[in-house]
Amino acid sequence: MPNAGLSAIRGWVESNAQRLLDELFSLIRIPSISTLPEHKDDVARAAAFTADALRNAGMENVEIIPTDRHPLVYADWLHAPGKPTVLCYGHYDVQPPDPLELWETPPFEPTIRNGNIYARGAVDDKGQMYMHIKAVEALRALNGGTLPLNVKFLIEGEEEIGGASISKFVPANKERLRADVALVSDTSLYADGIPTLCIGLRGLVYMEIEAQGPARDLHSGLYGGAAPNAVFGLVELLAKAKDADGVIQIPGFYDAVQAPAAAEIESWNSLPFNEAEYLAAEVGSTAITGEPGRSVFEKTWARPTLEVHGIGGGFTGAGSKTVIPAKALAKVSVRLVPNQDPESIVAAIKQWVADNSPKGVQTEVRVLGASPGLLVNPDHPAIAVAAEVFAESLGRKTVFVRGGGSIPIVGEFAQQLGIPTVLMGFGLPDDGLHSPNEKYKLANYYQGISTIAHFLSRYGE
Amino acid sequence: MPNAGLSAIRGWVESNAQRLLDELFSLIRIPSISTLPEHKDDVARAAAFTADALRNAGMENVEIIPTDRHPLVYADWLHAPGKPTVLCYGHYDVQPPDPLELWETPPFEPTIRNGNIYARGAVDDKGQMYMHIKAVEALRALNGGTLPLNVKFLIEGEEEIGGASISKFVPANKERLRADVALVSDTSLYADGIPTLCIGLRGLVYMEIEAQGPARDLHSGLYGGAAPNAVFGLVELLAKAKDADGVIQIPGFYDAVQAPAAAEIESWNSLPFNEAEYLAAEVGSTAITGEPGRSVFEKTWARPTLEVHGIGGGFTGAGSKTVIPAKALAKVSVRLVPNQDPESIVAAIKQWVADNSPKGVQTEVRVLGASPGLLVNPDHPAIAVAAEVFAESLGRKTVFVRGGGSIPIVGEFAQQLGIPTVLMGFGLPDDGLHSPNEKYKLANYYQGISTIAHFLSRYGE
Repeated sequence: MPNAGLSAIRGWVESNAQRLLDELFSLIRIPSISTLPEHKDDVARAAAFTADALRNAGMENVEIIPTDRHPLVYADWLHAPGKPTVLCYGHYDVQPPDPLELWETPPFEPTIRNGNIYARGAVDDKGQMYMHIKAVEALRALNGGTLPLNVKFLIEGEEEIGGASISKFVPANKERLRADVALVSDTSLYADGIPTLCIGLRGLVYMEIEAQGPARDLHSGLYGGAAPNAVFGLVELLAKAKDADGVIQIPGFYDAVQAPAAAEIESWNSLPFNEAEYLAAEVGSTAITGEPGRSVFEKTWARPTLEVHGIGGGFTGAGSKTVIPAKALAKVSVRLVPNQDPESIVAAIKQWVADNSPKGVQTEVRVLGASPGLLVNPDHPAIAVAAEVFAESLGRKTVFVRGGGSIPIVGEFAQQLGIPTVLMGFGLPDDGLHSPNEKYKLANYYQGISTIAHFLSRYGE
Repeated sequence: MPNAGLSAIRGWVESNAQRLLDELFSLIRIPSISTLPEHKDDVARAAAFTADALRNAGMENVEIIPTDRHPLVYADWLHAPGKPTVLCYGHYDVQPPDPLELWETPPFEPTIRNGNIYARGAVDDKGQMYMHIKAVEALRALNGGTLPLNVKFLIEGEEEIGGASISKFVPANKERLRADVALVSDTSLYADGIPTLCIGLRGLVYMEIEAQGPARDLHSGLYGGAAPNAVFGLVELLAKAKDADGVIQIPGFYDAVQAPAAAEIESWNSLPFNEAEYLAAEVGSTAITGEPGRSVFEKTWARPTLEVHGIGGGFTGAGSKTVIPAKALAKVSVRLVPNQDPESIVAAIKQWVADNSPKGVQTEVRVLGASPGLLVNPDHPAIAVAAEVFAESLGRKTVFVRGGGSIPIVGEFAQQLGIPTVLMGFGLPDDGLHSPNEKYKLANYYQGISTIAHFLSRYGE
């Protein structure tokens, strides 16, 4: 039986449209908030719902795998010998909906307005995860109960709380998870209608830097001028991390950084981008900052950064208190680009902190997490097929972008399973992930099912 | 009738010792905590007690003066025409006693242990204020009901909460308060047995500096590298305020600073001081910091400083949050030395902040208070007499020191009444003001009464 083409797939989606929506709504109505213990049963219900959906789609070996916290859901269909295997990943857990009063309609009562589904989890990631399941269902329905390639599903319930269980599971189940490529739909289109493949992600080293000055808070009248100040010491240290242009001053920090390929830069230059609008509407400040002579795309996608996420120490209440603070703490991270080794960077930072801590101030660096940046070769067969299919589906050339943030599971797949990930998401930049009134454009939900089914079909040829 | 000499005064103190202690204990037992509304009546009781004590000491025109919050107590004795007038200042209010569990005996139940009175207010300032009243009582008793000079008393009940009422009262009652010199006993001896006159105090400008980066907190993965960071902007700004040696970099900041007189430096060099012990026991750090080539005395008494008392902004909770903070706040003060004008310094700081705020970061400076530094001429007749009397009383040469902190009322007396202040205190550096187990050495209470009576006597000659 020949593979179903895009138009056949679209026909199937159209004739099942209401059911595809009703099912997604049922999943969204389960408040599977992974961070709140009182929703533990809801998270389990969402896992069961997902497992049932996989069974109904014809997947085999469906298993709800218990973990230390929330279960993983595994399933596969492996009856296409000689064909590639795709590992589909998604998550069925969601962020808390607070602040509730800002929602126009209740977060777990999905509502259609202006062509969008409004609900917590609509786009992140229930709506996008569910597209994968419905895509294989569509293909099986159109191909007489078979699939043009092998698929495995691994869906987690802890993505919004750090993904501890899946990051233990993956290295312990390499054979079971063996695949040629992973497929993740947890990203956005660059803009509505522009087929977008994310082929690079920044890594992240997250640290706490603590400074200790005097043994206890001192009276600044009595000791000011002679005693070290923990807050000022930390301020002095941190300020040395970058020059006035934002260039990081830590020795060796940029050594492994590679310039993006000319084709990538060219692709970025083709993207619609209005710097004045970006500054006013998104950043909301008086100036775009950072390394001179580099575009916003390069700065946020292809350059490593150092940010202070928070700082605290001494007296910050109302009024005046004249204390020389004993302690101060900063939360600091560096975003890493591909080829920068997190361990070497951590070592360079620790050395730099030791070398630059002001007199009388003891400092300590505590690393809370470290993951590398990633870059997928756009010439990889799966990426090439995805780009082609995406372009065919949306009717314009696929753009290759990078993401400035981290998706840790993509790193796990690369390191543990040795496979690249196709990051094919159908969200939009203004979908409001983690915010009140999260939305997912309904048309993109349907288009996502068709496009992914078409991708699996073509990749299996 | 000739003035009573030191030995006669000491005899009077000795024969009245128990009563002098009992009376002070009665005053201490009143929990006159000015900051706590539930103790408002106690504060009023302490004012009444003080007024009664003044009456019993033979003072006239005793008045409890209502204010917006806690009353002032005024009294005078003005029957020595042609003789100088001394304005005695003190305060009858105290700090809260918390944490209560650290007190060995209840804070408002004065107890003698190891020759010390342990109680809240023992030294700050009930014990020291009461010395003034008992000194005039002694002199009147010894001089047949007269005094060798004119005295006025002004005692407040808001010193521990900022002294708002007295700072309104003084400029509005200049004639009533006219005097040649003020006498304040709210300071300490440099060390036990060393007669110490404080002749200089630093002023204080207290500010909040607020920084605004993006309009709201941004995701550092999406915007890191291109968006301004309020915390880092504030860090960058503050770090520029001093060089690595602690020398303040604000243009014009040191212009009006005068070097201490050679005699003052010589006096400081004669003080017992162990830098290693100071570092270990008082500062509790690895290094004494601040301007190179200057002694700790010069740094803390005669040099202006800039301190960051606290800083806050962004995320400082447990774990990781990758936010680019929109706002950050620092509490900053400068300590001023005599001859530096607070208004000019504020203007210089504001200009410097405007000139040095990083790109994309808006800053605002809010001044919460500003007072100048003060220096009393040690050759002033009252100071000269005080030094002589103090030396005679304690049996060794009087040292002239300065205080690194501020005593705002001393500034009011200088600015509003045009008079210097004799800062003659009998506390000890380890008395634990504002702390649990505050104490006052009993012998110093009696010695204070004698010394102050002797000072009034000799200054009246």
